[in-house]
Amino acid sequence: MNKPSLYTSLSPAVLHLYNVRDCVVVVIDILRATSTIATALYNGAKSIIPVDSVEKCMRLGRDMECITAGERDGKIAEGLQYGNSSFDYPRNFIEGKILVLTTTNGTKLLHMAVAKGATEIITGSFLNFSAVCDHLIKEKKNVILACAGWKDKVNIEDTLFAGAVVSRIKEHFEINCDASKIANCLYDIAKDDLYEFMKKTDASHYHRLTNFGLEKDIRHCLTEDLADVLPYYVDERLVV
Amino acid sequence: MNKPSLYTSLSPAVLHLYNVRDCVVVVIDILRATSTIATALYNGAKSIIPVDSVEKCMRLGRDMECITAGERDGKIAEGLQYGNSSFDYPRNFIEGKILVLTTTNGTKLLHMAVAKGATEIITGSFLNFSAVCDHLIKEKKNVILACAGWKDKVNIEDTLFAGAVVSRIKEHFEINCDASKIANCLYDIAKDDLYEFMKKTDASHYHRLTNFGLEKDIRHCLTEDLADVLPYYVDERLVV
Repeated sequence: MNKPSLYTSLSPAVLHLYNVRDCVVVVIDILRATSTIATALYNGAKSIIPVDSVEKCMRLGRDMECITAGERDGKIAEGLQYGNSSFDYPRNFIEGKILVLTTTNGTKLLHMAVAKGATEIITGSFLNFSAVCDHLIKEKKNVILACAGWKDKVNIEDTLFAGAVVSRIKEHFEINCDASKIANCLYDIAKDDLYEFMKKTDASHYHRLTNFGLEKDIRHCLTEDLADVLPYYVDERLVV
Repeated sequence: MNKPSLYTSLSPAVLHLYNVRDCVVVVIDILRATSTIATALYNGAKSIIPVDSVEKCMRLGRDMECITAGERDGKIAEGLQYGNSSFDYPRNFIEGKILVLTTTNGTKLLHMAVAKGATEIITGSFLNFSAVCDHLIKEKKNVILACAGWKDKVNIEDTLFAGAVVSRIKEHFEINCDASKIANCLYDIAKDDLYEFMKKTDASHYHRLTNFGLEKDIRHCLTEDLADVLPYYVDERLVV
């Protein structure tokens, strides 16, 4: 029996090279959109509406009386209520609520995938790593691991997550994709301590967030399976 | 004193993210354009004219009475005389001659860099590895390592070469670029036997060229410093 194919798109700028139709597209923005999405949904958020602009975020927040959140360049965007940290969304705050979220890279990538005709989009992070892998194995469909990167540049943490997924599920897929293999190799050398690897290589995002005092956030976002949910995109929102 | 910056563009599709002006742009297409360019110039070719289409290659070949060569999808393009293998260009054949060359990825990337305003373009391959590194260290200018990839997809061998350069010269540069760090990590795990690494990971280009019986070509293109020249682009041609 033919195995389904798996590809990794290391940057939104190369997503157009892959046929996103009839695939499962995994949107990956480890620091921090897809980590925050997993956490908020795990902690009982009713749904998350990803939007591509701060203005739209504010407008939806007013119209629908929901929580507005998001960042630009790593900081809470002006006019929004909350940021892009998992720690902003404990259960006693977020349970039953709707969150409207806009981020620099992750939410933009998600809309790009939609615009290109993706029909099944889920979000992946280390926090919901096993849920993503189990789903991909079970679905038996072609997979595109779509890294958000940073303003279209390839980044280390999204590549590491893609590599972690490849490492876990590769027996079940046909992988004729050098980017997936590079990601797998990177994960193999980093897996014993992802945080230490980010620090040692002085990954650009480690550098940026550490400057904002967010070491705790980085450690959290590199931890497996703290938020065991599978967020999927339907009717313009993410739900579990 | 501030060190110059070094960036790696893993695919032509992300080259626009980097400012190629006032930089040294190193065009990298290990299998096989930039390896063949180094070899032909090392063996005494007068110059190499990289062109972006088979038609232009044939026309220049007629008008200037020079050798036409090039491939599409790994095979000699119809209408051209020679292919894209170093072994096609021994000294007793190429010395003193002008070669017009067109390839799937490398020559296209070179013209893209020109179109974006690059003023200093050199070509890099393992065959002229030390010449490239020595030049970059000496120039003290910002550097962009521009990988050709395969039809805009990231590939293993160009990434390995970028990683080899980063590994050799990183003390002399400021590197705030995750792609460079990923390339460096990949090279570190592969460097003991690059060919074996390509084989073990079943790199897409290893796979493709092996199907054409080109193992010997691959081994050759992964060997350091067999063609100790520095090809640079001036007046629409590559010379040393």
